[in-house]
Amino acid sequence: MSSFIHSVRSAAQTLAGAWRTQPESGSALSSQLMVSSSKDTRFEHILVLNVPFPDAHRALLDKHAKSITHIPNPRETPVPDAEYRKATAIYGSPVGLKRWEQVPNLKFVQLDSAGADGVVREKMWHEEGAERVVMATVAGVHMAPISQYFIMTTLALFHHLQEQILVSQVDKRWGKDAEFGGRLFVQELKDKIVGVLGYGHIGRECARLSAAFGAKVLAATSDGQKKPQAGYVEEGMGDPDGSIPEGWFSTKDETSFREFLSKSDVLLLALPSTGATHHILSSTTLSHLPAHAIVVNIGRGDVIDTQALLKALDDKKLAGAALDVVEEEPLPDGHPLFGRKNVLLTPHLSGRTTMYFERGIQICAENLRRLREGEEVWNQVDFKRGY
Amino acid sequence: MSSFIHSVRSAAQTLAGAWRTQPESGSALSSQLMVSSSKDTRFEHILVLNVPFPDAHRALLDKHAKSITHIPNPRETPVPDAEYRKATAIYGSPVGLKRWEQVPNLKFVQLDSAGADGVVREKMWHEEGAERVVMATVAGVHMAPISQYFIMTTLALFHHLQEQILVSQVDKRWGKDAEFGGRLFVQELKDKIVGVLGYGHIGRECARLSAAFGAKVLAATSDGQKKPQAGYVEEGMGDPDGSIPEGWFSTKDETSFREFLSKSDVLLLALPSTGATHHILSSTTLSHLPAHAIVVNIGRGDVIDTQALLKALDDKKLAGAALDVVEEEPLPDGHPLFGRKNVLLTPHLSGRTTMYFERGIQICAENLRRLREGEEVWNQVDFKRGY
Repeated sequence: MSSFIHSVRSAAQTLAGAWRTQPESGSALSSQLMVSSSKDTRFEHILVLNVPFPDAHRALLDKHAKSITHIPNPRETPVPDAEYRKATAIYGSPVGLKRWEQVPNLKFVQLDSAGADGVVREKMWHEEGAERVVMATVAGVHMAPISQYFIMTTLALFHHLQEQILVSQVDKRWGKDAEFGGRLFVQELKDKIVGVLGYGHIGRECARLSAAFGAKVLAATSDGQKKPQAGYVEEGMGDPDGSIPEGWFSTKDETSFREFLSKSDVLLLALPSTGATHHILSSTTLSHLPAHAIVVNIGRGDVIDTQALLKALDDKKLAGAALDVVEEEPLPDGHPLFGRKNVLLTPHLSGRTTMYFERGIQICAENLRRLREGEEVWNQVDFKRGY
Repeated sequence: MSSFIHSVRSAAQTLAGAWRTQPESGSALSSQLMVSSSKDTRFEHILVLNVPFPDAHRALLDKHAKSITHIPNPRETPVPDAEYRKATAIYGSPVGLKRWEQVPNLKFVQLDSAGADGVVREKMWHEEGAERVVMATVAGVHMAPISQYFIMTTLALFHHLQEQILVSQVDKRWGKDAEFGGRLFVQELKDKIVGVLGYGHIGRECARLSAAFGAKVLAATSDGQKKPQAGYVEEGMGDPDGSIPEGWFSTKDETSFREFLSKSDVLLLALPSTGATHHILSSTTLSHLPAHAIVVNIGRGDVIDTQALLKALDDKKLAGAALDVVEEEPLPDGHPLFGRKNVLLTPHLSGRTTMYFERGIQICAENLRRLREGEEVWNQVDFKRGY
């Protein structure tokens, strides 16, 4: 964890940019700098919901709050009205929060998820009142495990690992090369082209690892512009300045997107779920991929049109897919995506790292410090954009 | 392949260090420099055995030989006596070669395998006559695919991928986290310690990739000395100067080896099969590994005592294993290594890259050039050491 902990300065170091903590303030604060003469810039009350909260984690938040309440399982033990009313910050999942009247003092929400779509689906985040709250995700917490998953599954498809596993686990026998594609069948990442669709935290880390294996990386984003990474990044990981891709392409420009797809041997989908990304991989866009291409989806299931994907696989217009996310979760028993030799399907567990809450609490503590010192938080959610 | 092709200079560039080609010469040549006044330093006759040999490959050898004979399948069509008698060099597998009388003119053997143990098991390589032949392997040809395999299987064990595959392929249903170790179960390579036992071509490339994932690397070799890589290395791959490991340990020093094992979260066995490596992982050495450790064997099966491995797994003294090689190949149907949740077993196919013969012919051509110019060949076999 050594490289992980960013300089979490003590609150006493500076009072400039203090975050106004008076409960009576209902005015629009947004993330703007508030200069206060108060000596105590701590948050009045932090509500910790639906996350584990061992003493070591509490110690990291203690310095930022006058009081903290931890409700480990708010789905079983609902959050008392008084707790929500008092809360100036929430860390975790705001379970049961539906109306602004419930949280008159709320200024900051640190989600414990990398996406915000589950939360901002609530109407309240698009109503008057939302502008006074800063919301942040823990995007980046999954960089290591999900990028591992991308490399692991890409290589598993290249090595026909799934088929070899079935022979040794189910048949309990020594397989023969002919069953897996002949004498020489292993594809290499070296010199392949990896197309990264969605160049955020995870896309960038997958790009870095792909390059380490000798692959060439192309990036596609909505505007196709090379951009630095905003938000939280662990040291040495990802592609902070966006220098890894040898080409940038725009999903909004049909010609550009088509060129990107047609060049990709491996297509990584690392996209959030938004109106713009829904079924971005459709029968049309799938048809632009080379027939030898494989697709890996580690973002959200609805970015791929499942029926179009199945048809492309059946028609041998696509060599394989690794899916940790699908349109319908849980996928119904016996769904046609199950049991295919060239589809590696896992039940949305790629990010379940044992380091999850270790990183989450670090991001939360750093964001609390940033707010108190008038700095921009990591991973701020744009309610309109949805992530 | 661009980074792969090393400067294969034309034979005409230099005549210094020419390789004596007179068939009557039976004297010890070893790999020493032979200055000749002859204008034609080409090999008299190259025998290409048991490998594919498309025109593009022939073109690479043509400049180094006065004549070439290709026998694609010498196990079905035995090599004629006259062919062996005439051969000054062999590329491929010397099928049916048992006695020195068969090959009075042989000076160079370029094997198409990364190990030499299968060939030097023949008595002739330990008799008088062997000293006049230079033998080389294609060690390094497997760097990319087998190192991929190491990363893939390590991550597969960390993600419980095998169990997830069985649920989606066999049960055809959406798995639950509880089946795979609970809410948060994915281990990361980041900040793990990878112990690389055997620091040759593949060990070094696995070290480089492990470091790219944020792991710390330790190396163990017989003498425990930091050494540069000898032989063929593709550009940008491996660890040519041995600078990646944060510690070097000796397998001959009991204390040193024990320390290496006790520190390894992931133990990679990348060893050749020799007297010294047989059962190097025994009940004793296995007991020095932490109980959470996993073992990956990509070298030769007999470096692990199978019974000791099974006992360590049964006793939960070892968390898992990925084995591409085992003591008995093919492993008999229903062997107790099959069907274990935490053993990822594949039938010795990790190196079956589609790039295999592309790299093999490049190494062969470069070694022919090196011999003609009096340079040391890549990957020369030490008959006594066995690799």
